[in-house]
Amino acid sequence: MEYGLKDLRTSLDNIDSAIVYLLAERFRLTHKVGVYKKQHHLKPVDSSREAAQLERISELAAKSGLDPAFARKVLQLIIDEVVEHHKKLIAS
Amino acid sequence: MEYGLKDLRTSLDNIDSAIVYLLAERFRLTHKVGVYKKQHHLKPVDSSREAAQLERISELAAKSGLDPAFARKVLQLIIDEVVEHHKKLIAS
Repeated sequence: MEYGLKDLRTSLDNIDSAIVYLLAERFRLTHKVGVYKKQHHLKPVDSSREAAQLERISELAAKSGLDPAFARKVLQLIIDEVVEHHKKLIAS
Repeated sequence: MEYGLKDLRTSLDNIDSAIVYLLAERFRLTHKVGVYKKQHHLKPVDSSREAAQLERISELAAKSGLDPAFARKVLQLIIDEVVEHHKKLIAS
């Protein structure tokens, strides 16, 4: 494999590592949100917050050169996982 | 809304912004990988590389406290998008 490809893959792996650590920290924070929701008897889903998040991320993606539809897909995957965590926490 | 929840959401938005910028940069890099693949008549998918990426990310997720299955799901979504980009680029 040419140096160029190997070099690109090293950068991709570094970026993926950064994303994993950010996601780990993100779920630490959403766990706190879940605890708050449980304590305050709030629903696991907050549709207006979710819509605002998706809208914000679409705009940011467009500015940074990332496909906004793809950015929304990633955020939706994350939000769906968070909601599952919240549901389990609230039910526990 | 209590300060605590608003504060957590500000942190979540910041993390999401960081992830968007990392993804934007990641697709800039995979575009270069796509150009390389086209020039060298390589397939858009590299199964052994893909398996290695998923394995690496699972281990990293476990270490950082992120659900490895979820980390794989996110990476698979990214890889699938990259492969679509590669296919279009190679066909162009």
